[in-house]
Amino acid sequence: MAAPTLVLDASTGAPLQGQVAEALRSAILAGRLAPGTRLASTRALAEQLDVSRNTVLNAYARLLSEGYLVGHLGSGTYVAREVPEKLLAARRAPARAPARGAPPALSKRGAAIAAVPSLPATGPDIPPGRMAFRVGLPALDAFPSELWGRLLHARWRRSWRDMMSPVPAEGYPPLRRAVADYLATARGVRCVPEQVLIVNGTQQAMSLAAQVLLDAGDAAWVEDPGYSPARGALIAAGATPIAVPVDGEGLDVEAGLRLRPDARMAIVTPSHQLPLGAAMSPRRRKALLAWAARSGAWILEDDYDSELRYVGGPLPSLQGLDGDARVIHTGTFSKVVSPALRLGYLVVPEPLVEAFRAARRLADRHSPVLDQAVLADFITQGHFSRHVRRMRVLYAARQEALLDAARRELRGLLELSPLPAGMHLVGWLPEGADEGAAVERAASAGVVVIPMSSARLDSRGRGGLLLGYACVPEEEIAEAVTRLARALR
Amino acid sequence: MAAPTLVLDASTGAPLQGQVAEALRSAILAGRLAPGTRLASTRALAEQLDVSRNTVLNAYARLLSEGYLVGHLGSGTYVAREVPEKLLAARRAPARAPARGAPPALSKRGAAIAAVPSLPATGPDIPPGRMAFRVGLPALDAFPSELWGRLLHARWRRSWRDMMSPVPAEGYPPLRRAVADYLATARGVRCVPEQVLIVNGTQQAMSLAAQVLLDAGDAAWVEDPGYSPARGALIAAGATPIAVPVDGEGLDVEAGLRLRPDARMAIVTPSHQLPLGAAMSPRRRKALLAWAARSGAWILEDDYDSELRYVGGPLPSLQGLDGDARVIHTGTFSKVVSPALRLGYLVVPEPLVEAFRAARRLADRHSPVLDQAVLADFITQGHFSRHVRRMRVLYAARQEALLDAARRELRGLLELSPLPAGMHLVGWLPEGADEGAAVERAASAGVVVIPMSSARLDSRGRGGLLLGYACVPEEEIAEAVTRLARALR
Repeated sequence: MAAPTLVLDASTGAPLQGQVAEALRSAILAGRLAPGTRLASTRALAEQLDVSRNTVLNAYARLLSEGYLVGHLGSGTYVAREVPEKLLAARRAPARAPARGAPPALSKRGAAIAAVPSLPATGPDIPPGRMAFRVGLPALDAFPSELWGRLLHARWRRSWRDMMSPVPAEGYPPLRRAVADYLATARGVRCVPEQVLIVNGTQQAMSLAAQVLLDAGDAAWVEDPGYSPARGALIAAGATPIAVPVDGEGLDVEAGLRLRPDARMAIVTPSHQLPLGAAMSPRRRKALLAWAARSGAWILEDDYDSELRYVGGPLPSLQGLDGDARVIHTGTFSKVVSPALRLGYLVVPEPLVEAFRAARRLADRHSPVLDQAVLADFITQGHFSRHVRRMRVLYAARQEALLDAARRELRGLLELSPLPAGMHLVGWLPEGADEGAAVERAASAGVVVIPMSSARLDSRGRGGLLLGYACVPEEEIAEAVTRLARALR
Repeated sequence: MAAPTLVLDASTGAPLQGQVAEALRSAILAGRLAPGTRLASTRALAEQLDVSRNTVLNAYARLLSEGYLVGHLGSGTYVAREVPEKLLAARRAPARAPARGAPPALSKRGAAIAAVPSLPATGPDIPPGRMAFRVGLPALDAFPSELWGRLLHARWRRSWRDMMSPVPAEGYPPLRRAVADYLATARGVRCVPEQVLIVNGTQQAMSLAAQVLLDAGDAAWVEDPGYSPARGALIAAGATPIAVPVDGEGLDVEAGLRLRPDARMAIVTPSHQLPLGAAMSPRRRKALLAWAARSGAWILEDDYDSELRYVGGPLPSLQGLDGDARVIHTGTFSKVVSPALRLGYLVVPEPLVEAFRAARRLADRHSPVLDQAVLADFITQGHFSRHVRRMRVLYAARQEALLDAARRELRGLLELSPLPAGMHLVGWLPEGADEGAAVERAASAGVVVIPMSSARLDSRGRGGLLLGYACVPEEEIAEAVTRLARALR
């Protein structure tokens, strides 16, 4: 029965039971209480230390849970044969050189995920004058940073406590309402706020839809050429992407029916096909909706770049045409506000809301609250609509500037056609030209472009480059085209 | 050959081809160009309008892509028989009343996801004096809101442009470095910054690990009782959670081996078992690591509440003991900073980094940049360590206050024992008491508790309530316990 000399100091204000536990632990580690020693009874130690028996009981309980003691409370408690620190020290040395070189045992799905090619990263630290021609980046030079900073500051000052409290998985309620209003008026989406889920951008929307609506092995149509991360979201969910060709009317529904009529989903960009730019034609929209209604398949409408239509006003969404609740609608604030904000939305048919909410909870709970609140303020105070209108004019002008420069300098090197919407153009290389070499030569001239092949799955065809113009100030465009022409020549 | 009267206005500054397209579109919609009408040749219209033929070609191309025109550029272009707006209007009416009541065709996985029970939501708008006893919420009353607001403001002012630019999937580099430093010194984690991935909290870490390391149908051990969303993350990935019992030494590895020795993963909380509070014992740690090394399985170490240890200093992590690179380590800032921030980290063995990075890219790209940068500032300027130290003292005192009040008022109603770490205690109900009724009676007295059954999978056992004390100011604790006692009596 060991009753070690323990010194407690009531003046520190630390809880007594913590002091008792700490003193015992030190005695064990210093060897004053040897391994295997039976400890004094809790009653005896309590008397010795002049503390309540509960205090000692609690201290013993803590050390039992940490592995310093073994046995049972009240019926004989012993110092453990192997105490944690000793064990840790003993194991630390060999562990310093972990086994390397052995291939990691990824799952089949993990290996497929790792094999999805990534688009070139668009990091921060882009040197000034070197924005050309990064795809997917909005005009940072026209971003209302003062205004955004004021909203951020005001929101934090007014309600930091709410900003630090969790919200439901489906999002910060005022943002859901603002998005529902916006989609109804600007995009012809028919929804109530309860159908809106705030997500971390379109990519998460695709990932959640694949989890909720597909099982491993299920087939899903994707556009080819198309947005390769859409295919990646399917792969991450264990589903099988089916590359369906696109033409000037968007996804070729007939071809999809020939390839895999039993597909459970189609991921499409009807407003502005990524990357070719076609709007899905009315007859294709009808055919796609009819297929989904007939077969019980789902359509994931990626309403890509729909706000940025320069001609004829925005095209109404596919969701607005859907009488059978087969369309999941998604869009993002990455293109109009910023991709660093990581906010977008999903609009799902009411019977699916609960399942999507559960999937979001299990994916990562919810989007950060402060970011959601500031974006809600940005929208409800009218800044968002104004910003979209300004960006429409600005981007149309930047597209014109790119086309003008291309007409002067890229003839025979890269063939560009205007597109009625979006933030990039496709520059087609001469037949037989080496796309990879063109991308590298452009990069060495300080011009960043994405090869068309990065958007292709099974499709073969002419090589081309995607040129993002939205983020490039007009005065930089001509100069960058000159550098590009020199590099390609 | 229709050559409608089109009026262009060069003074608006809008691109000419946009004006041409817009004018044609208006003429079509107004019926001035009837469906089926053959349009004038591009050359003729260009002469009529005194614009270049390219301008007209581009306008025609846009309207073809939008479905207003059909045919081919240059070889006969016609007004479409069904123009988009008409089609939309025609289909809108029936679509207003979508079919309801029909069960949605979720995938099997989707149905399983929807069936995962959610923990009670902890929303904003909690009335003052009603924090007791919400599980998982930190002490908002002790959050350094002024300081955080200053960091937010300074970061935006200094580098808003970088804050609005995307970062790599693995996170904002200064935050990865800060986390790696912190984990090496405070948690005994052996890693370089390249192994650290910033994620949206522990839930996303689990979700990514399940996607990368498991295939549909693979078995994975989870603790029972345990954190039910861990099970949910497995289900969302199509994997099969295996409930393994826990005791005072943490997960019972022997039991796991009996149940499913072929499991490919174990998700454990070795620092502080959730919800029972045991630290995994040294021999169990050894056994778990040996199993993983032998069978090539993975251990996901959820380093839950490890910073908030009130006795004997933090326990070193399991990752630090692992000589075979089988441990994936994850932790969160939700408990120490705020769950609304949605930031945590993953530390993965080097051979897995690329696959996790790819999975994150496909899940939702990356975490918001501004939030990451402010947290990095908070850590590197020393505020985080100070805050953890303050919270340790505060939470230890709050736990004591809860235990004191319970000793006075809950005898025979709810049996509480101290825990050496964390933010909640387990209150055990008398044998045979109705747990659901207790939760409801507590709620009607304004006290929010989680039933132990919400943490159980297969395990049966005594009913209990989880009482989160971290978020409750000391002066509220006694008063809330009085209300709880009255409700349970």
